[in-house]
Amino acid sequence: MATESSITPREKDFPVWYQDVIAAAQLAEHSPVKGSMIIKPEGYALWEMIQADLDARIKATGHRNAYFPMLIPESFLNKEKQHVEGFAPELAVVTHAGGEKLDEPLVVRPTSETMIHDAFSRWIQSYRDLPLLINQWANVVRWELRPRMFLRTTEFLWQEGHTAHATEEDMQAEVEKMLGVYKELAQDVLAIPVYDCEKSESERFAGAKRTLTIEAMMQDGKALQMGTSHNLGQGFSEAFNVMFTDKDGQRKYAWLASWGVSTRVIGGLIMTHSDDKGLVLPPRIAPVQVVIVPIGKTEDEQQAVKKAIDELMLALGTDVRTHLDDRDYQTMGQKCNEWEQKGIPLRIELGPRDLALSQLVVARRDTGDKETVKLSVADKRIKQLLEEMQVDLLKNATTRLEEGTVTVSDYEALKTQVQTGFARSFWCGMAECETQVKAETKATIRCLPFERKLSGSGSCIVCEMAAAKEVLWARSY
Amino acid sequence: MATESSITPREKDFPVWYQDVIAAAQLAEHSPVKGSMIIKPEGYALWEMIQADLDARIKATGHRNAYFPMLIPESFLNKEKQHVEGFAPELAVVTHAGGEKLDEPLVVRPTSETMIHDAFSRWIQSYRDLPLLINQWANVVRWELRPRMFLRTTEFLWQEGHTAHATEEDMQAEVEKMLGVYKELAQDVLAIPVYDCEKSESERFAGAKRTLTIEAMMQDGKALQMGTSHNLGQGFSEAFNVMFTDKDGQRKYAWLASWGVSTRVIGGLIMTHSDDKGLVLPPRIAPVQVVIVPIGKTEDEQQAVKKAIDELMLALGTDVRTHLDDRDYQTMGQKCNEWEQKGIPLRIELGPRDLALSQLVVARRDTGDKETVKLSVADKRIKQLLEEMQVDLLKNATTRLEEGTVTVSDYEALKTQVQTGFARSFWCGMAECETQVKAETKATIRCLPFERKLSGSGSCIVCEMAAAKEVLWARSY
Repeated sequence: MATESSITPREKDFPVWYQDVIAAAQLAEHSPVKGSMIIKPEGYALWEMIQADLDARIKATGHRNAYFPMLIPESFLNKEKQHVEGFAPELAVVTHAGGEKLDEPLVVRPTSETMIHDAFSRWIQSYRDLPLLINQWANVVRWELRPRMFLRTTEFLWQEGHTAHATEEDMQAEVEKMLGVYKELAQDVLAIPVYDCEKSESERFAGAKRTLTIEAMMQDGKALQMGTSHNLGQGFSEAFNVMFTDKDGQRKYAWLASWGVSTRVIGGLIMTHSDDKGLVLPPRIAPVQVVIVPIGKTEDEQQAVKKAIDELMLALGTDVRTHLDDRDYQTMGQKCNEWEQKGIPLRIELGPRDLALSQLVVARRDTGDKETVKLSVADKRIKQLLEEMQVDLLKNATTRLEEGTVTVSDYEALKTQVQTGFARSFWCGMAECETQVKAETKATIRCLPFERKLSGSGSCIVCEMAAAKEVLWARSY
Repeated sequence: MATESSITPREKDFPVWYQDVIAAAQLAEHSPVKGSMIIKPEGYALWEMIQADLDARIKATGHRNAYFPMLIPESFLNKEKQHVEGFAPELAVVTHAGGEKLDEPLVVRPTSETMIHDAFSRWIQSYRDLPLLINQWANVVRWELRPRMFLRTTEFLWQEGHTAHATEEDMQAEVEKMLGVYKELAQDVLAIPVYDCEKSESERFAGAKRTLTIEAMMQDGKALQMGTSHNLGQGFSEAFNVMFTDKDGQRKYAWLASWGVSTRVIGGLIMTHSDDKGLVLPPRIAPVQVVIVPIGKTEDEQQAVKKAIDELMLALGTDVRTHLDDRDYQTMGQKCNEWEQKGIPLRIELGPRDLALSQLVVARRDTGDKETVKLSVADKRIKQLLEEMQVDLLKNATTRLEEGTVTVSDYEALKTQVQTGFARSFWCGMAECETQVKAETKATIRCLPFERKLSGSGSCIVCEMAAAKEVLWARSY
């Protein structure tokens, strides 16, 4: 196991710090297959927490889960021109199976629009079948040349929502509603503040008419796209013949949407809250919220401490996810170090001296603050501290996002600002200006913030032409 | 949607009846990729129920979930000789990715022993790391020439447990414990009685020293293997160098086990309980346990009925999974037919005439019995009926299993018995005799029931040599 000293400080090398935190918290490791990672139990428990929360939100908004084949006929991808152009370079292809060469190669799904829209063409007959609201939890494969754990891996886990609607308005409402669900997950659960906004044309999903996104700021000032929601228009409907008979008796193409969130959000969680000691987890998503470390040398001491801990755990009940670390072959120091690296929000220490004073000690992972709490009120105080920590993590990240987002009015200021944060400026809307910024600064347009009204007139930060669009620029993962 | 009349009776054609039930209940459908099925929302909800129950049991027995890459280097499979011989004919192979031919082909996992044992070789250092108890929920691919929905599909969903132990005894205890967990799932939740027993050598998992199995009897008398648990000995440890330093300071190979249950159990659920009207679901696993169909023509009637239903649903609370079918474009007959085909355990009808008498009508899916229940006790009676139905389904299936298992003492009787059920007989232990029975009757040794003691002496049902093993023969899925 990695020790505390093995975590490289953020200041020294942020990408190495990121890898070190993952290793020390035992979240994941590289596998023998290039670009693929093994999600270890600590990391998978985190994904299960995210899944449970998001799945409940997806179902509460009327969607149903289903499962579609992972292997897709190559010809399916070719049916939507932009879609195949976007994904062709990333495909893994099965050419042989059952000991024989296949007549038609099968691609491992990079996303399931094609397979699911083909099914929609059979499932949808009339306007009564709409909206059709489907979600799938699955693995997907996109060949990665520069893999990075959780952020970009050849195989990753995600949910992909696919819906069909009778009207463009209904479809657009769905696209916005699901982005709202993602924003709730990010802010209320993961304590990650985000901009919810629209992608520029060059950053859209392959085949989409519009792509909405939530964008978060990591501690190094780079952006991370945390989830996207796509207006697919009628392009896929036409390619896969997804039609319905409307109330007026006419046959019409359905309006389609899709939206997805992946294991990548775990990377965002790490880079938003963690510090040079290791992982920091927001209490709401922590698989273990409180670790209890008993202290005691003699058997009598151990029994008395155990009794107090049993009472505390009973008082906390199922409201709080606790873990008792009663291993006898690890020192107190080793245990504290391990739970710090694993990001457990609260660590409780309880020994004979505390017991004599009817108290225990609680250490908060994020601030490092230790406080003494009377046993009689410990359960209440623990729940309170978990709430406070959740609120503080979001507050700190929000301050960073706000302070790290600066409005710039000349090109030099833009260049400087995207080294450490997000720059807001006017943009003429031309792809050439976008491309120039990317080439010279590595920053891209993260999005066109749609909740902000244009304030006064402006000129493009690059070409200085009159500009009607205010955009966010940043380097990104 | 299929109508009732479209379900072929079991007597007429059992395999076609099976397909008809799946179609009418909207559980799954064929996909454009041969051998792969689409699990539709009704079918996937069933899998989610099974997953939730089994996952809780797996965690309660100390296992933790993780996730390993789906693409496995071909060379990994070649490391364990029997394993690769067993799986080679079924592999799907990725030869190209990212636009290039791969240096080494990657196989889509048919099972994950090789990838996981490779990880175990890094994760296990000392006896303190043992037992290592890991489980994975995943999709796997085994190329199928004769696919059948849920029972044999090219891609299927499952959980695969993989564990490492310091001693052979610990490993064997794990193998038996997890078979016990599977038996509980089958009997207590799915209401499917099973024989828990051991496979003969010819039917073992490729690479296993022993394979335990739970075997159920379908309504046509055929056997279905519902779950298996394998003693892998030290073969994979040697192939993947899974070693640990024991308490005595010696480096030793770990003892490995694996066990799995797949979407195939849904096929078993269908073929155990369903009837000529469609699916029948045991209440404990039914995603919807009670469907409520209101009756009423005038708006006043509808409002009064709605009020009574709201009160009932409040009284049932979260203990009972209910669905209100208030669609206005379907007749009562269409609705009843649909819910019958979908196997909802209880259907409640409530109209103005019932309301005047302060009662409602409950129809039980399995027996077809209808009873009138006073509104004041309806919530209690509904819960009782759900329990009763669960018990009755298991009782009926147990009677079928017991009556359908006959001890035979001559070869002709064996041949006859396996046409309609299971035959129990003595067997000499020679593969030749097993092969002869298979060739002549299509029946195989399902297992050697390990809970039964040999009663007296016996002779092999085939060669009539003195025999020490009592076995179960059956045709199987």
